Amino acid sequence: MATTDASESDDPYDRLVSRVKRLRNVGAAAEVLSWDQQTKMPPGGAPARSQQLAALSAVEHDLFGAAATGDLLDAAAAAAESDDEVALCREVRREYERRASVPTALVERTTARASEAVEAWQAARADADFDAFAPHLRDLVALKREYAEHVDPDRDPYEVLFEEFEPCLSLDRADAVLTDIRDAVVPLVDDVRASDVDPSNPFEGTYDEDAQEALVRDVLDSLGYPWERGRLDRAPHPFSTGTVYDARITTRFDETDPVKSVFPTVHEFGHACYTLGLPEDDYGTPLGEARDLSVHESQSRLWENHVGRSRPFLARLQPLLEEHLGVAPDVEALYGWANRVDPDNAIRVEADELTYHLHVVLRYEIERDLVRGDLDVEEVPAVWADKTEEYLGVTPADDAEGALQDIHWAYGNFGYFPTYSLGSAMAAQVYEAASDDVDVADHAREGEFDPLRGWLREHVHRRGKRLETDDLVREATGSPFAADAFTAYVDEKYRALYEV
Amino acid sequence: MATTDASESDDPYDRLVSRVKRLRNVGAAAEVLSWDQQTKMPPGGAPARSQQLAALSAVEHDLFGAAATGDLLDAAAAAAESDDEVALCREVRREYERRASVPTALVERTTARASEAVEAWQAARADADFDAFAPHLRDLVALKREYAEHVDPDRDPYEVLFEEFEPCLSLDRADAVLTDIRDAVVPLVDDVRASDVDPSNPFEGTYDEDAQEALVRDVLDSLGYPWERGRLDRAPHPFSTGTVYDARITTRFDETDPVKSVFPTVHEFGHACYTLGLPEDDYGTPLGEARDLSVHESQSRLWENHVGRSRPFLARLQPLLEEHLGVAPDVEALYGWANRVDPDNAIRVEADELTYHLHVVLRYEIERDLVRGDLDVEEVPAVWADKTEEYLGVTPADDAEGALQDIHWAYGNFGYFPTYSLGSAMAAQVYEAASDDVDVADHAREGEFDPLRGWLREHVHRRGKRLETDDLVREATGSPFAADAFTAYVDEKYRALYEV
Repeated sequence: MATTDASESDDPYDRLVSRVKRLRNVGAAAEVLSWDQQTKMPPGGAPARSQQLAALSAVEHDLFGAAATGDLLDAAAAAAESDDEVALCREVRREYERRASVPTALVERTTARASEAVEAWQAARADADFDAFAPHLRDLVALKREYAEHVDPDRDPYEVLFEEFEPCLSLDRADAVLTDIRDAVVPLVDDVRASDVDPSNPFEGTYDEDAQEALVRDVLDSLGYPWERGRLDRAPHPFSTGTVYDARITTRFDETDPVKSVFPTVHEFGHACYTLGLPEDDYGTPLGEARDLSVHESQSRLWENHVGRSRPFLARLQPLLEEHLGVAPDVEALYGWANRVDPDNAIRVEADELTYHLHVVLRYEIERDLVRGDLDVEEVPAVWADKTEEYLGVTPADDAEGALQDIHWAYGNFGYFPTYSLGSAMAAQVYEAASDDVDVADHAREGEFDPLRGWLREHVHRRGKRLETDDLVREATGSPFAADAFTAYVDEKYRALYEV
Repeated sequence: MATTDASESDDPYDRLVSRVKRLRNVGAAAEVLSWDQQTKMPPGGAPARSQQLAALSAVEHDLFGAAATGDLLDAAAAAAESDDEVALCREVRREYERRASVPTALVERTTARASEAVEAWQAARADADFDAFAPHLRDLVALKREYAEHVDPDRDPYEVLFEEFEPCLSLDRADAVLTDIRDAVVPLVDDVRASDVDPSNPFEGTYDEDAQEALVRDVLDSLGYPWERGRLDRAPHPFSTGTVYDARITTRFDETDPVKSVFPTVHEFGHACYTLGLPEDDYGTPLGEARDLSVHESQSRLWENHVGRSRPFLARLQPLLEEHLGVAPDVEALYGWANRVDPDNAIRVEADELTYHLHVVLRYEIERDLVRGDLDVEEVPAVWADKTEEYLGVTPADDAEGALQDIHWAYGNFGYFPTYSLGSAMAAQVYEAASDDVDVADHAREGEFDPLRGWLREHVHRRGKRLETDDLVREATGSPFAADAFTAYVDEKYRALYEV
């Protein structure tokens, strides 16, 4: 059988790179299909699209995990000399070993099962009926446990799944950071709840979606988003996807509150900015790829929260609001509304910068126990409600507002949620380091974001996967990855805003 | 090495179908990427996109032509009983044998060379400089000759390349049909040229593109285009692509002449209508695929020329023109303009229903001689000019209007052009047969196109590749495929219009 080896070179490293590039391009094709599905595809296209995506992921998995990859890798690694060669072989080996250990048939069964589960989840959420989703969740937990068993039968299956998203951070490290975040946020939220300060909504009435789109396009312009390498579309859930050559953004609009499209758009800009800052020459190899989810989320959160929700940025947003929407709240009113803490909100994607992490922690605890077999699927709604009450002081109205609110588990993604909070912690640490070198606030007042983009490109983006996460953070910030910068940041910011 | 075999069944036929479906879905993914490239992709995305498309075609070629496919095919074919099973094995074998004989490295080299050639062609055409394109054309001819040599070193290489697009029609048959078309069209064009009738342009001034888009959307509505399984976008060159679940159309607009978007849109509707009429249950296998290019083109030409350019259709177009563009030429004026013959036009894509085939014949003759080694690349511009003079009585102003006007050769497509004329001939034959069963003109007057769509679905679309082309045409029309219906149709139509 032909080996899907694009290179006619005799050098094993060149041949490995060539093979990996081909398979990565298959993965990139899948991302384009997924973008299309969420933005342009007519509804009737779903059955074919799920088959196309399953075919691409099966082919990529099959060929990446094939013995031919392992043979090339062994030969390439034995001859690797430069740091880049060693790093590339390290990253390919990590993925090769994982894929080689998991049968393609299991990947396919899981993909197919997840397709059904997503449909069932949509219906169950609409009916607020967890029982209708429970058998699907049970199957997916079982399939992912089977997956973890293939990867390593001797390890905690949740740890194995977490590493699918975060291969360079141990679950112990992650758990410590999450615990530090929770321990800082819980008392802070208590104090906020007791505060008399309650920022009011400066927006009244409704705002046309086309006008809001023109607004966020101007915001993206002002941040330096390169339209010749990207585009903005509407989608039910904002996301960013693509390559260094073409990094797209989607957003959505809320007719009563323009900041509900501005900040998600700035968030996605942060993701796109990372993608666009990757080294072009390494496109298609790990050296040209973003380092894992926490680092990606650090870039989106940095732009969304540290830049976007700052006074200098809001001072520049104000005239754009006036121009496009005919409303010009004063900057302090905007700042208060943009940073308002709402502990009574039970929905993660609508949560503020503080309580967001409590939503994450409760999901992390539940999915971890589910995967470890310490919690039954039937118990999830009650545990969810209890933890929401405990961490947030609010009770979900029903399962739709409770255990059915997120799509992640329906996709079979267990171990993903923690990366959101890890990314926020990393954002604060990276922003603090960038601020030592670049006067971000001063530049932001001038609408000048090139210096910050340049700093991030230099210290984070252009590295690709050359460094593992800890080394990347340490080289960029001078310290090991920890929650300290984040806890100091939120403490200072929210005690000032809420006068507590 | 894993075999990319999706099925866990023991039955070789099931396993073959499963494998073919997976690879066909990879091909379908490539079509989505190509659609995106022509409609949505930002310009910077090109380098990644060409790598993604090359990866998908290499993976599909490699795995389809792999020994594992051949082994499954042998086992499946030995056990095949039903007509469907036999037909599927016949079609898979045809493709397997072709792919197995051609090294993936050659396919990749050709794809990469074509990418460069397309860019060079664009620049050369802009400069009307054939010499700048000549080395690219020479390389592509050599690569495609190498391809043909791999497939069968003992056969005419042009015949081998033609069969890539038209595997069920012999080149002799095709040549006979093309000759019959030419022999009918040449004297007819001479008579038209001598006629005093000269239909005048009923449109004046310019028409807004958005208004024209609203017009063609209404036209598509009236034809029954199902928007839940398709969409309309703008692209530099109109095309249709997709699956039975999602068959998309693109078009472009000419600000001075609305019929220049209406007929291309109706043409693409014809392609989409075929795709949408394929059997859903066979999606991803040859039984669910369109039969080759001539049959596809028969469907687009049928809707464009036999339906679209007819008086009943134009009578329904008239009020839509008035509604959207504020212009309402009378039906005879529209009919004359929509069917005007312009022998002085040197550009194929702007050619009328008669002279179009003379453009095709000259390309066919030139590419055939190039591939056979009977013509040197340097001679092409002069031969092109001579043949244009001979067949059309007009001399191209320069190479841009001459040998550089089409992109096909830059893509490495030799043997494609004849399928356009074969499709027109087939359209006339199929339309004649449909008209025996369905009163198409009468229904069209009522804006009722379901009966024609239903007839085409029953006799052509739903068959997929169950029948070879000749059998498909014979079963649908009662006669073997020939040019007679076409020559009779154009003779009657154009002698009446031009009073000759």
